[in-house]
Amino acid sequence: MVEANGADAAWPDLAGRIVAEPSGARQHVLPVRVYFEDTDFSGFVYHATYLRWCERGRSDFLRMIGVHHGDLLTGEGGASPAAFVVRRMQIEFRRPARIDEVVEVHTRVASLTAAVLTLAQDVWRDGIRLFDATVDVVLVSLDGKPQRLDRRLGRELGPHD
Amino acid sequence: MVEANGADAAWPDLAGRIVAEPSGARQHVLPVRVYFEDTDFSGFVYHATYLRWCERGRSDFLRMIGVHHGDLLTGEGGASPAAFVVRRMQIEFRRPARIDEVVEVHTRVASLTAAVLTLAQDVWRDGIRLFDATVDVVLVSLDGKPQRLDRRLGRELGPHD
Amino acid sequence: MVEANGADAAWPDLAGRIVAEPSGARQHVLPVRVYFEDTDFSGFVYHATYLRWCERGRSDFLRMIGVHHGDLLTGEGGASPAAFVVRRMQIEFRRPARIDEVVEVHTRVASLTAAVLTLAQDVWRDGIRLFDATVDVVLVSLDGKPQRLDRRLGRELGPHD
Amino acid sequence: MVEANGADAAWPDLAGRIVAEPSGARQHVLPVRVYFEDTDFSGFVYHATYLRWCERGRSDFLRMIGVHHGDLLTGEGGASPAAFVVRRMQIEFRRPARIDEVVEVHTRVASLTAAVLTLAQDVWRDGIRLFDATVDVVLVSLDGKPQRLDRRLGRELGPHD
Repeated sequence: MVEANGADAAWPDLAGRIVAEPSGARQHVLPVRVYFEDTDFSGFVYHATYLRWCERGRSDFLRMIGVHHGDLLTGEGGASPAAFVVRRMQIEFRRPARIDEVVEVHTRVASLTAAVLTLAQDVWRDGIRLFDATVDVVLVSLDGKPQRLDRRLGRELGPHD
Repeated sequence: MVEANGADAAWPDLAGRIVAEPSGARQHVLPVRVYFEDTDFSGFVYHATYLRWCERGRSDFLRMIGVHHGDLLTGEGGASPAAFVVRRMQIEFRRPARIDEVVEVHTRVASLTAAVLTLAQDVWRDGIRLFDATVDVVLVSLDGKPQRLDRRLGRELGPHD
Repeated sequence: MVEANGADAAWPDLAGRIVAEPSGARQHVLPVRVYFEDTDFSGFVYHATYLRWCERGRSDFLRMIGVHHGDLLTGEGGASPAAFVVRRMQIEFRRPARIDEVVEVHTRVASLTAAVLTLAQDVWRDGIRLFDATVDVVLVSLDGKPQRLDRRLGRELGPHD
Repeated sequence: MVEANGADAAWPDLAGRIVAEPSGARQHVLPVRVYFEDTDFSGFVYHATYLRWCERGRSDFLRMIGVHHGDLLTGEGGASPAAFVVRRMQIEFRRPARIDEVVEVHTRVASLTAAVLTLAQDVWRDGIRLFDATVDVVLVSLDGKPQRLDRRLGRELGPHD
């Protein structure tokens, strides 16, 4: 539980928030500021930046339900050392973002099987959707073998259609 | 034509090569080394790194057919200042790459319309495909208006079905 | 003032906090989470990542005293379009950081002249200093000419020895 | 020796070249193209990009004298798994680079002790120096212990004052 340090307590919203949608489904919301590093010479946010932001959203969503990359890597609880890996993405870049803006990364579970966690993620600025993606992630041991996701995540993520 | 400097002449393969496939279609090939910056703590290449590599492939492909980002940005030839922007991607991450490896980014035109250039891109290591993507790019002026692609690129890229 | 949007209000600590040190000097503190993107295959945080974090600290410090990159770029108030540029850095990497950790970037003004703003920045984890840097930044117009800093920043940053 | 694959042979200059300076000292030269990913909204190359480029120069210099990160990581030859880590940098950003340009990263050994390899690195465009840095690197085992450099590198790098 590497992250349970003092700074974590001092900055309560650092990992975003899990909110209930009107439908009852849970959604993770992470605010992100656009910095120099996120932009390119066109003046817009660089396209691969959205993938970094979505990865932050996924990591913080998992963190808030008790799953930590550092623990997976060291193989806590007798499990093989493992890491989440992206297997497939479908992406639409709808509108550009620019320096200084604040956007929100929204992450929700689309489906969970024994092998694949599918997330729907989008990026919003003031109620306008800038980006959306469907992301399939799998858990692999460091020598490349797929690991079961359902036992580890199923309890937290619950049944999904 | 900012890039026609001495270093460019001294390193002839720096922008990769355009090769003819058995079908007669042309394909751009760019070698890429895996450095520290491309990897993450899992030991694998970070997923968004492949998008940076594909962007290099697209840029060098365009460069070799005479289209330069710097010229587009300054609006050379009376055109509006403009930049290529990714609109849509479908991505599959098949196998991991690791530090020190050399991979090749392959880029070919899938289709070209007045508004959208669709590219098929994949990343290979020693004959094994690690990654593939279909990428829709558009040309937009810096205030966000779509620009016609066909007149500028059509002559170079030729007819495509 | 692009950033004064709804998301900004909803996440009050997003730009960190300015705190008074015992000496009376002000210091900006920004919490940063370590994500996949920040690490490399060694398992440690990639060295250039600290520069990205420090740039976030500088940007948010300036933001909190009313200076915005977007406004500088569009040349608000009749000024030439301009951007902050790093001129010189002295850096010491003391201890590594790792995935999932929360660190704090501390930024304070070391000196301010007509041309150069010198900042002292360090990165801490639970009271342990991981990194420190002295950073000289200048403001240049987009065609490369240095701009006076003192009139714009002097009022906010006050006299410094 | 992961990198001795077919792609490596097909692209002979991919790791740059080691050239003899008039003084007899050896210098490594690596060409680098400026892509979207390297720039920011100011239109200039983002400051931390130069650190990525220098790291590529260091890695390829070491590669050409027979030292490979992948081998160090797996602890080849009975050594502890280890990685090169930057300990200290002094950096001067002299002139900006822009999209599409080709620059060269020059790397030479300034000194080598049992613990620290000091490199002088600079970035040039058409005979103009854009950037220079002095970089101290050390070799650490993955649990953080410093490793001796001289036996491993001394034979290749020769005596230095």
